[in-house]
Amino acid sequence: MRKTIIGVMGPGENATATDLKNAYDLGQLIASQGWVLLTGGRNAGVMERATQGAKAVGGLTIGILPGNNTKGISEAVDIAIVTGMGNGRNNINVLSSDLVIACGMGLGTASEITLALKNEKQVLLLTEHRESQIFFTSLSNQLIAIVHSPKAAIEKIKTHLDLFRN
Amino acid sequence: MRKTIIGVMGPGENATATDLKNAYDLGQLIASQGWVLLTGGRNAGVMERATQGAKAVGGLTIGILPGNNTKGISEAVDIAIVTGMGNGRNNINVLSSDLVIACGMGLGTASEITLALKNEKQVLLLTEHRESQIFFTSLSNQLIAIVHSPKAAIEKIKTHLDLFRN
Amino acid sequence: MRKTIIGVMGPGENATATDLKNAYDLGQLIASQGWVLLTGGRNAGVMERATQGAKAVGGLTIGILPGNNTKGISEAVDIAIVTGMGNGRNNINVLSSDLVIACGMGLGTASEITLALKNEKQVLLLTEHRESQIFFTSLSNQLIAIVHSPKAAIEKIKTHLDLFRN
Amino acid sequence: MRKTIIGVMGPGENATATDLKNAYDLGQLIASQGWVLLTGGRNAGVMERATQGAKAVGGLTIGILPGNNTKGISEAVDIAIVTGMGNGRNNINVLSSDLVIACGMGLGTASEITLALKNEKQVLLLTEHRESQIFFTSLSNQLIAIVHSPKAAIEKIKTHLDLFRN
Repeated sequence: MRKTIIGVMGPGENATATDLKNAYDLGQLIASQGWVLLTGGRNAGVMERATQGAKAVGGLTIGILPGNNTKGISEAVDIAIVTGMGNGRNNINVLSSDLVIACGMGLGTASEITLALKNEKQVLLLTEHRESQIFFTSLSNQLIAIVHSPKAAIEKIKTHLDLFRN
Repeated sequence: MRKTIIGVMGPGENATATDLKNAYDLGQLIASQGWVLLTGGRNAGVMERATQGAKAVGGLTIGILPGNNTKGISEAVDIAIVTGMGNGRNNINVLSSDLVIACGMGLGTASEITLALKNEKQVLLLTEHRESQIFFTSLSNQLIAIVHSPKAAIEKIKTHLDLFRN
Repeated sequence: MRKTIIGVMGPGENATATDLKNAYDLGQLIASQGWVLLTGGRNAGVMERATQGAKAVGGLTIGILPGNNTKGISEAVDIAIVTGMGNGRNNINVLSSDLVIACGMGLGTASEITLALKNEKQVLLLTEHRESQIFFTSLSNQLIAIVHSPKAAIEKIKTHLDLFRN
Repeated sequence: MRKTIIGVMGPGENATATDLKNAYDLGQLIASQGWVLLTGGRNAGVMERATQGAKAVGGLTIGILPGNNTKGISEAVDIAIVTGMGNGRNNINVLSSDLVIACGMGLGTASEITLALKNEKQVLLLTEHRESQIFFTSLSNQLIAIVHSPKAAIEKIKTHLDLFRN
């Protein structure tokens, strides 16, 4: 039976220290709930730390890679999906996630948030980047929620998944 | 020899009256310069009006369609590229454009702007949506420029293309 | 650490009884080796039976879906990758597989074999379809091998994976 | 109004002298009919020669490129569609063509034929490669026709387009 997949999207190269800590905690908490973690799969920034967090507690991790081979993959990824589509893979990241968490902000992350919302996926925004909070709320206030900690994100996800189930 | 392609991205369903007028004018001005117009190809909103504007002065128009056939295509599209990729086609829209103009704002448009910037394409922002101006400038102030009219957009494009040529 | 993924490709609607039996056995044998099974994910034909075989022995199963949601997914799929790309997802199927087995023959399967070979992946051909054996061998005799049973396929995979490891 | 697009698919690197001559003639004949030529866009083999043939008589040429920029493009391409999808772009090649001609044979070409047939597109096979003729006819004898010259291909296309129109 299909497992619940939670996508954590965030900057590879320009993650802040807070983003990296949040990413690790998110990975751990997601895996602790028995959910599968999905990221962009690279050994950089939020992708890398979230995946490591999930593996630290024995979770299952998916990486949706932009290249046409597994070069640059996080060592903590269990399941490598090789798309060969570059940034075009961002649409697959969000379509494959039952819910998307944006941890930090950057161009790739912003593209994933917008594609997620466009595809009518629920998005949680965990970032100190004030302009993002204002912008995304202005575009879609029903599908996006601002959260202030990994723990708060997990509580939101539980409520969301319950709603879908009942 | 490869023709210059200018991408005009904008909302299908929620375009404002100003967006629609700007789209038509952009299409006309782009075609008048001898440039090819590229849009998302659907018979709705900014895509439709920009394409009609370009055809009104005998321009060449490309539509990059989300579906796996030409259903819902703007009648003014000359060249239909059928991707069958849904919103995943947004990355192709921006990769195929020498420069991207965002005319109006919405989730799809925002995804195209972020993907364009991520792929290091120059983007011109023609919208009254203040949150967008602040947000995108905060993410990438070098590759994005705010313009206040279709004519101003054309002047910016000329400068940009000259820079690339020399 | 990245798990070994074996792709089993085969017809959804026009599988023969032999194809279906082979698919189930392949799924079981692949999972028994500790490898992850990857298919096109639909609840039809070879995809469905291979996935059921893998689950029967507690394996992990991935389905790379053509649609933009999980409609039509095999109930035995654990990890749904939702591409929204239609047949365009076939390239992802083969890029994500360490090795591809074609079980039976059809248009989709033939596209996966050719894309796999084009991407320099090893392909095993398990089909009674004589024209396919001749055709694919004529195109690429180094990367393709004809096998006559699921067990023989597993032996070939072991040798192949050993070669890559050493 | 949407222009008729004819796709010519064929090997880049391993085209025979006959394939190259046929490709040039096909390009010329297609453009002479007022149809747009679509190829994989690279400056190699059948893609290059078909595109040159079309330009020799003032036709319009599209290249659907595998990379994420225009490196390696045929100089004779007018409209570059940049997909960044590698071989994944082959599905777009065939979806965007009103009819597909396979000129010569190779792995990429075979993937395009199978994807075209899977997407229910008419395919014309112009190749001396006997195994292909047998193989593709065995998979789909209704949508594929073997032709023995560029001129014969053009006649078939005319009939096909008339059928669709009436």
